[in-house]
Amino acid sequence: MDKNLEIDKTDLKILSLLMQDAKMPYTAIGEKIFVSGGTVHVRMAKMEQMGIVKGSQLIVDPVRLGWDISAFIGIYLDKSSLYDEVADQLEMIPEIVSINYTTGMYSIFAKIVCRDTPHLREVLHDKVQKVQGIQRTETFISLEERTVRPIPLL
Amino acid sequence: MDKNLEIDKTDLKILSLLMQDAKMPYTAIGEKIFVSGGTVHVRMAKMEQMGIVKGSQLIVDPVRLGWDISAFIGIYLDKSSLYDEVADQLEMIPEIVSINYTTGMYSIFAKIVCRDTPHLREVLHDKVQKVQGIQRTETFISLEERTVRPIPLL
Amino acid sequence: MDKNLEIDKTDLKILSLLMQDAKMPYTAIGEKIFVSGGTVHVRMAKMEQMGIVKGSQLIVDPVRLGWDISAFIGIYLDKSSLYDEVADQLEMIPEIVSINYTTGMYSIFAKIVCRDTPHLREVLHDKVQKVQGIQRTETFISLEERTVRPIPLL
Amino acid sequence: MDKNLEIDKTDLKILSLLMQDAKMPYTAIGEKIFVSGGTVHVRMAKMEQMGIVKGSQLIVDPVRLGWDISAFIGIYLDKSSLYDEVADQLEMIPEIVSINYTTGMYSIFAKIVCRDTPHLREVLHDKVQKVQGIQRTETFISLEERTVRPIPLL
Amino acid sequence: MDKNLEIDKTDLKILSLLMQDAKMPYTAIGEKIFVSGGTVHVRMAKMEQMGIVKGSQLIVDPVRLGWDISAFIGIYLDKSSLYDEVADQLEMIPEIVSINYTTGMYSIFAKIVCRDTPHLREVLHDKVQKVQGIQRTETFISLEERTVRPIPLL
Amino acid sequence: MDKNLEIDKTDLKILSLLMQDAKMPYTAIGEKIFVSGGTVHVRMAKMEQMGIVKGSQLIVDPVRLGWDISAFIGIYLDKSSLYDEVADQLEMIPEIVSINYTTGMYSIFAKIVCRDTPHLREVLHDKVQKVQGIQRTETFISLEERTVRPIPLL
Amino acid sequence: MDKNLEIDKTDLKILSLLMQDAKMPYTAIGEKIFVSGGTVHVRMAKMEQMGIVKGSQLIVDPVRLGWDISAFIGIYLDKSSLYDEVADQLEMIPEIVSINYTTGMYSIFAKIVCRDTPHLREVLHDKVQKVQGIQRTETFISLEERTVRPIPLL
Amino acid sequence: MDKNLEIDKTDLKILSLLMQDAKMPYTAIGEKIFVSGGTVHVRMAKMEQMGIVKGSQLIVDPVRLGWDISAFIGIYLDKSSLYDEVADQLEMIPEIVSINYTTGMYSIFAKIVCRDTPHLREVLHDKVQKVQGIQRTETFISLEERTVRPIPLL
Repeated sequence: MDKNLEIDKTDLKILSLLMQDAKMPYTAIGEKIFVSGGTVHVRMAKMEQMGIVKGSQLIVDPVRLGWDISAFIGIYLDKSSLYDEVADQLEMIPEIVSINYTTGMYSIFAKIVCRDTPHLREVLHDKVQKVQGIQRTETFISLEERTVRPIPLL
Repeated sequence: MDKNLEIDKTDLKILSLLMQDAKMPYTAIGEKIFVSGGTVHVRMAKMEQMGIVKGSQLIVDPVRLGWDISAFIGIYLDKSSLYDEVADQLEMIPEIVSINYTTGMYSIFAKIVCRDTPHLREVLHDKVQKVQGIQRTETFISLEERTVRPIPLL
Repeated sequence: MDKNLEIDKTDLKILSLLMQDAKMPYTAIGEKIFVSGGTVHVRMAKMEQMGIVKGSQLIVDPVRLGWDISAFIGIYLDKSSLYDEVADQLEMIPEIVSINYTTGMYSIFAKIVCRDTPHLREVLHDKVQKVQGIQRTETFISLEERTVRPIPLL
Repeated sequence: MDKNLEIDKTDLKILSLLMQDAKMPYTAIGEKIFVSGGTVHVRMAKMEQMGIVKGSQLIVDPVRLGWDISAFIGIYLDKSSLYDEVADQLEMIPEIVSINYTTGMYSIFAKIVCRDTPHLREVLHDKVQKVQGIQRTETFISLEERTVRPIPLL
Repeated sequence: MDKNLEIDKTDLKILSLLMQDAKMPYTAIGEKIFVSGGTVHVRMAKMEQMGIVKGSQLIVDPVRLGWDISAFIGIYLDKSSLYDEVADQLEMIPEIVSINYTTGMYSIFAKIVCRDTPHLREVLHDKVQKVQGIQRTETFISLEERTVRPIPLL
Repeated sequence: MDKNLEIDKTDLKILSLLMQDAKMPYTAIGEKIFVSGGTVHVRMAKMEQMGIVKGSQLIVDPVRLGWDISAFIGIYLDKSSLYDEVADQLEMIPEIVSINYTTGMYSIFAKIVCRDTPHLREVLHDKVQKVQGIQRTETFISLEERTVRPIPLL
Repeated sequence: MDKNLEIDKTDLKILSLLMQDAKMPYTAIGEKIFVSGGTVHVRMAKMEQMGIVKGSQLIVDPVRLGWDISAFIGIYLDKSSLYDEVADQLEMIPEIVSINYTTGMYSIFAKIVCRDTPHLREVLHDKVQKVQGIQRTETFISLEERTVRPIPLL
Repeated sequence: MDKNLEIDKTDLKILSLLMQDAKMPYTAIGEKIFVSGGTVHVRMAKMEQMGIVKGSQLIVDPVRLGWDISAFIGIYLDKSSLYDEVADQLEMIPEIVSINYTTGMYSIFAKIVCRDTPHLREVLHDKVQKVQGIQRTETFISLEERTVRPIPLL
């Protein structure tokens, strides 16, 4: 499992900067970490090929776009063995933004975003609870979300 | 609360594309949605000023970088009223990538990433549990994470 | 969602007074808030038509009428998807005075009133637990009820 | 405990009608139950004096007035013995519409109404959790409320 | 519900003494409470006929007889509606000394006595868990039992 | 620990009969089990001296005496180490008829009998929750009690 | 149950030493406890025959062999009565190193060792959750294991 | 972390055999796995030096020695940060045979062995609950223990 054998400090510095701002130009990165822009380019190409870099995304504020409710759903399955089938079905609900298969009380931990309480009701009642294999769900509504940040590579 | 009054379908289409790929050129976006690159530029400037667009980030695969463990921590406080102080302290732990103030059993729901079990032990034992005001924590280790995707704007 | 567009401060003042005492004459209300009785009448007619005002009710003390036990029932369903069917059946049990579809541990949260412990036993055993789709219930008996009051409109 | 000694079937019929509609005229009630309007008046006066009738209230639809969120709060106290003090403090928070002292997991079960998620956050964070003696709260958001009706007297 | 109409202070005094010692002679009781032995006899006969007095029992120390383990079992049913059937089956297990149908988490709360851990295992595994309709049980072993006494009549 | 060395089948037969009916005459017992009344007497004297027989009690039906509510209380302590002090205080509350020190979620499991809901409220609020060292209690009200019988000696 | 009748202090001393170090020579043991090596031999032969001594094992450090994760699994069964079947199936999963049939919330408590998080995922997802009769599992990952020692015989 | 770099298949085969029977002679091992006894010796010396092999122990059947009760204790701390102090104190209680610092509901998971119920009571009441920093414990008694076996090295 030599997965991170080819990754050195320079690679991590590059990633760190782009994880803060995906659009920082390679020359600006190079200047900051004392390498050429070409080196940055080569390193990024390598890391994309290795599957380390998977893409980039714009970060938006959901509340300002009218998506007022963000919630976690702890899901109990009819049987733990149904995980794959249930996860496949959950993946088709667009309001679900992440699905985790977890140790602990819940088999699945999903994150959901909704516009308002009626929308949450609709997603839970008409979509999540229609999924075959789900026995029961518990919903934890997020009243405030802080500190969504990347992993601390350095 | 006219927060999304100035946002139209074109704005949402632009955001949707950039939430999939933050580095897509404005001209390419313009072609896809039948407006000029200049329009895309103007709309993005407006949305940045409105606080809707908060930045961009590179998406990496933590496992391929040697960060093997991702976990959720449900936190019980000594008293619910300590939320702000505890959240401020948690924010200073770099391995914590998000903090949510939630309804339900736990006062705080945090996400953590670690390199391996000893690292998890160190973060929980030496950092999280040293935070003043935390009574007890429950840790849910993620065995698989699927479907981390943006909110469905359209 | 311009649902409360036509509602102004005067409307809310009228509602507030009637939510304390449904039988206060419109002229008395008018005097209190410095409008004519006719205005009160017009406003009430508008709010009834809009569906804001749904009726009025006498408030009685159940204990003095021999209804000694008031309890909350948290209901776990066989499957969350059975909510509608179960709620329909619960609605036919007269001792159940409210039904809420809730986030959290319980799928349904109902309130029940009974005359005494044998009556509670009868309602739980012979009525609630006969409902198809209920897996398990938890009963929280109210030892004291305080502060049943309307929402604070102003 | 002769609390309901003076109450007969006629009294209960009168109450039942007024619990559906507090503003039904006494003569209309009399016609329905085959007594004179004067009898209705006498009976109501008696029941008011006995403390059975406590008042009347207009029923409004909170959602149509912009109060989107209705929630139950299960409250754990630092010590069960703090119930009275905590209930007194909770009573001063206008968004709390009922408080029950209950058997079971929670010492107190309160109902709350809020305008939206930020308002709920404010009430929980700035008001409920500032109350001395509360250790922890769990919030169950109501996604739908059905069947709010009076007790079945007859 | 005039169930205790015919019961007076003298009756309660008699019961109290016999609930401490079922074999106290009626004359001794009479002397203590300043009535004749005949009165005690008449009162007891009345209370037996009314179903108030149901019998008497010797109190033994189970531990000294080699019955080392006393435990409570909280029983979850497959469905709450199965209570009667399950209780009937449990009643046929001699080690179960009481069965209560309860509000709260468990549908049934039973008390069990066993000789030792292997006996407890046998009763739980071979008898209780063979009962149709039981989903799951939780066992609370009593490490000490104090204060088994009658209700305080006076 | 030769605690039951001196106990034989005859002893157990005698106990069994008296555990069903404490007042059965020794001669009647003797006839049933084919020994003399004198033998029964000798055996009982031995078992009383050994501490096996602790007394006898009249069995009454609490409901017919107006004691409508029987409940179990699961007690969480501030600290498990407070068991002795708390048990001593609980023992002074007459409505508590048994106290068990248990393994499992609750430190103490007590049984309580009350006349009605207001009485239960008074006992919990004014007596149990005033006990120093109790953090929280959960109350399980018994809706039906069956099968209160002695241990199966034979 | 004269199970430990033939066991004396000398036997226990021998066992104690060998429970610390299975390979200590019998002569060395004999010297320590002032008996001959032959006596040690005779005693051990007796205890092996009695089934007291069941074998010996080398103690290794799993972490140094690359087995990083050690976890406890609390298992809820579909029905408690399925214990035997489920335990038989669990026994065939080599990563499970112990299985306990327990009182309390979980029917089965098992210990598992794995190489890393993906291995844990594989064992839980592909092996444990495929076992017929398991409804749900909770996993408690051990962050540190201390004090694995034998029972204190002396 | 090249911790298992020097370990090869032969080493693992040797360990596997000795983990089944610590007293198997090296020559017998050598024959089974087709190497010389000297090689086994060299490998074992290396693994002892590397800290992989930590010793050996006799396996006894606790029940046949009169240790009837084996239990798991889930421990909640006053504060999670007290783990080290509490673990140090627990380590001094001889009946505790293992201590795990775990994720999930409990901070500490310990295993205990006792002679009988009174002994369990003494250990819990007089030793475990006297430990400073423990808030509450839950005890899961093992009714049957199966499959205590070493990790599957090969």
